[in-house]
Amino acid sequence: MVTAEEKELLAERLITGNLYKLKHLCSTVQPEELADIINDSKEIDYLKVFQVLDAEKAIKTFENLDFKVQLDLLRNFSLEQVASTLNQISPDDRTALFEKLSEETLQKYLSLLSDEERKTTKELLQYPEDSIGRLMTPDFISVKEDWTVVQVLDYIRKNGSNSETISNIYVTDSNGFLIDDIKVRDFLLAPLDKKVNELMDLQYVSLNARDDQESAIEFFKQTNRVALPVTDFKGLLVGIITIDDVVDVIEEEDTEDIQKFGGTEALDEPYLKISLYKMIRKRAGWLVILFLGEMLTASAMGYFNDELNKAVVLTLFVPLIISSGGNSGSQAATLIIRAMALGEVTWLDWWHVIRREVLSGLTLGSILAIIGFLRIAIWSQFTTIYGDYWFLIGLTVSFTLVGVVMWGTLMGSMIPMLLKKIGKDPAVSSAPFIATLVDVTGLIIYFSLAFLILRGTLL
Amino acid sequence: MVTAEEKELLAERLITGNLYKLKHLCSTVQPEELADIINDSKEIDYLKVFQVLDAEKAIKTFENLDFKVQLDLLRNFSLEQVASTLNQISPDDRTALFEKLSEETLQKYLSLLSDEERKTTKELLQYPEDSIGRLMTPDFISVKEDWTVVQVLDYIRKNGSNSETISNIYVTDSNGFLIDDIKVRDFLLAPLDKKVNELMDLQYVSLNARDDQESAIEFFKQTNRVALPVTDFKGLLVGIITIDDVVDVIEEEDTEDIQKFGGTEALDEPYLKISLYKMIRKRAGWLVILFLGEMLTASAMGYFNDELNKAVVLTLFVPLIISSGGNSGSQAATLIIRAMALGEVTWLDWWHVIRREVLSGLTLGSILAIIGFLRIAIWSQFTTIYGDYWFLIGLTVSFTLVGVVMWGTLMGSMIPMLLKKIGKDPAVSSAPFIATLVDVTGLIIYFSLAFLILRGTLL
Repeated sequence: MVTAEEKELLAERLITGNLYKLKHLCSTVQPEELADIINDSKEIDYLKVFQVLDAEKAIKTFENLDFKVQLDLLRNFSLEQVASTLNQISPDDRTALFEKLSEETLQKYLSLLSDEERKTTKELLQYPEDSIGRLMTPDFISVKEDWTVVQVLDYIRKNGSNSETISNIYVTDSNGFLIDDIKVRDFLLAPLDKKVNELMDLQYVSLNARDDQESAIEFFKQTNRVALPVTDFKGLLVGIITIDDVVDVIEEEDTEDIQKFGGTEALDEPYLKISLYKMIRKRAGWLVILFLGEMLTASAMGYFNDELNKAVVLTLFVPLIISSGGNSGSQAATLIIRAMALGEVTWLDWWHVIRREVLSGLTLGSILAIIGFLRIAIWSQFTTIYGDYWFLIGLTVSFTLVGVVMWGTLMGSMIPMLLKKIGKDPAVSSAPFIATLVDVTGLIIYFSLAFLILRGTLL
Repeated sequence: MVTAEEKELLAERLITGNLYKLKHLCSTVQPEELADIINDSKEIDYLKVFQVLDAEKAIKTFENLDFKVQLDLLRNFSLEQVASTLNQISPDDRTALFEKLSEETLQKYLSLLSDEERKTTKELLQYPEDSIGRLMTPDFISVKEDWTVVQVLDYIRKNGSNSETISNIYVTDSNGFLIDDIKVRDFLLAPLDKKVNELMDLQYVSLNARDDQESAIEFFKQTNRVALPVTDFKGLLVGIITIDDVVDVIEEEDTEDIQKFGGTEALDEPYLKISLYKMIRKRAGWLVILFLGEMLTASAMGYFNDELNKAVVLTLFVPLIISSGGNSGSQAATLIIRAMALGEVTWLDWWHVIRREVLSGLTLGSILAIIGFLRIAIWSQFTTIYGDYWFLIGLTVSFTLVGVVMWGTLMGSMIPMLLKKIGKDPAVSSAPFIATLVDVTGLIIYFSLAFLILRGTLL
């Protein structure tokens, strides 16, 4: 295995080496690693690399390259090379490539496929974006229930080379409907004369080709399988999904969630590869929305302008108060969003969640209130900045903290749940979003309490 | 496969059914699903369920249960039942159970194991916490290079039933050192009389038993394998890791990162299952630290008390300004933390990152500055709240926004990278943490610029 340093060294050599050296270098690494090195480097002349790769390794390497590199290679390949590459890469990788092509290029490349591969590709592209159908490969091994183990093993030996994985063997009826899936291990461990139907338990998990890719994650986690069969709405076996594709989906989904949660649109591209313009655009949207929302704080404070003028000392605690609301809201939102993503919390738990968050908010708010009061009490012994009414100011700040933190935890937990309930992505209720929302209400709570507590004295 | 609704229905029936009905119900679901249903429900009498399960299904179900349920079952099982369960569950699941036991219980359970299983368990427990050794299973199939394919298949048939997966077959020399790994598919597709060494390519990826579990993720993603061999520091093959365990590690790591990023310690337990006391403790720590940090804003504003008294109007924009810094910092921090977790960005890219973030900050800050200035200019036509010097106030706010947003993006991107560089977890530089840090400096930038721009007029 190549470590990060070895990879840099290899990249270095791939950049500087002549054809003869390249050929030697490429023979020492696995195609997945080679692709990884090319993806990470900007300077490797991958056209030269592909000149020295043998046919099989070229295909496997190509499958693992980034879209941009794939596209550039295809543009520079001879027509014959393009056709052979497109016909030989596995159908799921081909779908991933084709779905990103412009209509014109798509039609051109489709025309280069054999009739059979073109039919497969068109079928796969008919499934909705981000659906399981787009992720699956239609190459699998299906057997009949009256075969013997030795027949199955012979069949695999003759027909298995195209299948992406043979970890599971699928039993179908004469019409192609899925009856069962059996781990290949069961065939390997069974006596050779046993019949397939003696190995069947008629219990299988299948995915629906039109379902969202995210739904596959839960199924893979529950079943501990490395591949799952995919059926159409009638139950016809149309393909399989392998766990390595699902691992990519998990990371993609988590990245999207994390980025949205940080208050930016999902980048959909690696940080260092996305163009600066695109990145700024993805960040500017939310930043401006939050800014416009936050402008309400200026209005809220303007509304309390008279009070502010009378008691400027109150403004000293504004950042402290609004940030405490934002922080507690951000905590609650993260916990709930992640718990929903993992399926630990659903809408049905709303009452349970409210109870927990109100209690948490009350406790956390009280802790901050005590610290805040102590701070004001102690400072007031050494400075005159808080004036004669430091006790009342301390009370105002403390009560406000309890209120603001409770409000923060409540909003932070309920808004993601409500978003999910109405079919929106809960991750957009980001830390900055919740903070902004809580800021305005926090100010209103603060100045209202100040008015109540300090009327007749400071105000 | 059971959907969420079917699961609820099944849970309902498992709660109310008599033994006879339970036996029937349990025969219709896979052990993984049954465990899932028990884990999710609080009311199922799992002791009753385990009375009706056949031996094999009971073991498989037990392996997939939560630690608390496992422990409760073991406490209520007969001694014989405990011994047979502990001896039969797979070694990696046993390690996961044993590492959470108290010393006393651990010794008691160890004494119930057969000599062989006890030796294995003790060896596995010697690996550091969260290491690959703790995740691996020592049951694998290893063959010698001079065997034929048919010999290998016969060997698998006789010895494979204990192995967690037989997707890969390992070739070792006479001392047990790993020479190669070969996919079982290669054996299934090869002529029966071929020799093992004819299938070998001497290229394999192996994990180190003492390495951190997180390192396994990258290897699995790169190699598209469903199982990887684990060796000790000398190269002796000691176990294998399967991808389903790695999927769990990915989700765990992502959950930890997300929770830390939201400004709370990682819960390490599902939201609805962790005790309220524990959850509040995990949240209070950071909330108090952030609160203490944020207190500096009160000091900073106190420091500018004279200016504040002269120009109360400046306070109106305090929340707007500090939140803009916090939001842009939170965006930058999320993007960088995630990019580092995915290996897209390393310390070596620091200069590249700084350049990107300074440019982004400048652009984003300027956008907000223009909006902010327009708002003040337009409002000042309709209200007297900003007074005669609205133009200078607008300039102050605008310049501050550029400065604060740039400072936010710079801190948000550099602090996670510095933390990583000094060996700390970058995810602790959470959105609230960055926001707090930027708040204090934001105020200083604001009032310093105000002093420069408004001296002689408002100040």
